[in-house]
Amino acid sequence: VSPEIEPRRVRSDAQRNLASLLDAAKDVFATTGVDAPVREIAARAGVGVGTVYRHFPQRADLVVAVFRTEIDACAASAADFTARLGPGEALTAWLHRYSDLIATKHGLAAALHSGDPAFEPLPDYFTARLGPALGQLLDRAVGAGEIRPDVTVDDLISAVRELSGSGDRDRVDRMVGVFAEGLRVRV
Amino acid sequence: VSPEIEPRRVRSDAQRNLASLLDAAKDVFATTGVDAPVREIAARAGVGVGTVYRHFPQRADLVVAVFRTEIDACAASAADFTARLGPGEALTAWLHRYSDLIATKHGLAAALHSGDPAFEPLPDYFTARLGPALGQLLDRAVGAGEIRPDVTVDDLISAVRELSGSGDRDRVDRMVGVFAEGLRVRV
Repeated sequence: VSPEIEPRRVRSDAQRNLASLLDAAKDVFATTGVDAPVREIAARAGVGVGTVYRHFPQRADLVVAVFRTEIDACAASAADFTARLGPGEALTAWLHRYSDLIATKHGLAAALHSGDPAFEPLPDYFTARLGPALGQLLDRAVGAGEIRPDVTVDDLISAVRELSGSGDRDRVDRMVGVFAEGLRVRV
Repeated sequence: VSPEIEPRRVRSDAQRNLASLLDAAKDVFATTGVDAPVREIAARAGVGVGTVYRHFPQRADLVVAVFRTEIDACAASAADFTARLGPGEALTAWLHRYSDLIATKHGLAAALHSGDPAFEPLPDYFTARLGPALGQLLDRAVGAGEIRPDVTVDDLISAVRELSGSGDRDRVDRMVGVFAEGLRVRV
């Protein structure tokens, strides 16, 4: 094994560990909440508790990393939808994707209001990542004449967040669907 | 003045007093909140503080009476809209009216969670009065083929309440408008 290859394999193992740790933490947070025991997260990820603490000395660091990862994935989905769907459909698909993000962020609101400074950058990160992603979808759909031009990124971020607060996922999905339908320009 | 007429005039004076008291209390609650001083309410209604306490020995009684009156007016507006507007337009107009009721009920949520037993019947009263009013509008609009048939009274009561929570009335109005538009069947 050449010294050029070995560090890469180690790095890629570490990255896989980190990715499965973040994935496990996301699932455990979603079911048990952000106060779930670290050993539960470690067990689900198939790593030792020490690995968790080595990556994330504080629980808040892990919570922040999970939500950054989820926000990044939601922002990145905008490009996927744009590539696969027409302007109006892409916007609708993304609003549902964003609604899922809101609906599954169990305990994040409580964490954000806990006063822990580790969480302070999250709301800005949320806005900085999701705002431009939605902005591009909205510009494209309004430009194509498919979506009414009198709504803003802030309107949509707020309205879909409000509609996604209840626990009933089926209702949330239908109501976000109604709202997205209302954005369409009648032909 | 005959003894038959006098009691009626007295009763009608008392009713006018009560109506202007409820009206004044509604305005004061909307600006100052449900903990506003009784003297402020009495002054606005043009009655003495004693009159307020005679009608409503406890502040909670006055709060309950104001919200029952507002709920009644919102329920009654359904018939007005039905008489004046087409099925779809009547539903849209009522959803805006209901949104206004939610948006202006300053302090009611806090009052409802205060644990005062006087408030206990209010949520049931809200549902019992507004549910059937909306149900008739929805049945008529769905029956006319103007509104999609896959939404329920509970869906609309919840969704419009959620959209009406923010403080920005202009945005609330536009977002409720988008939502109502999404209920329309495309022609």
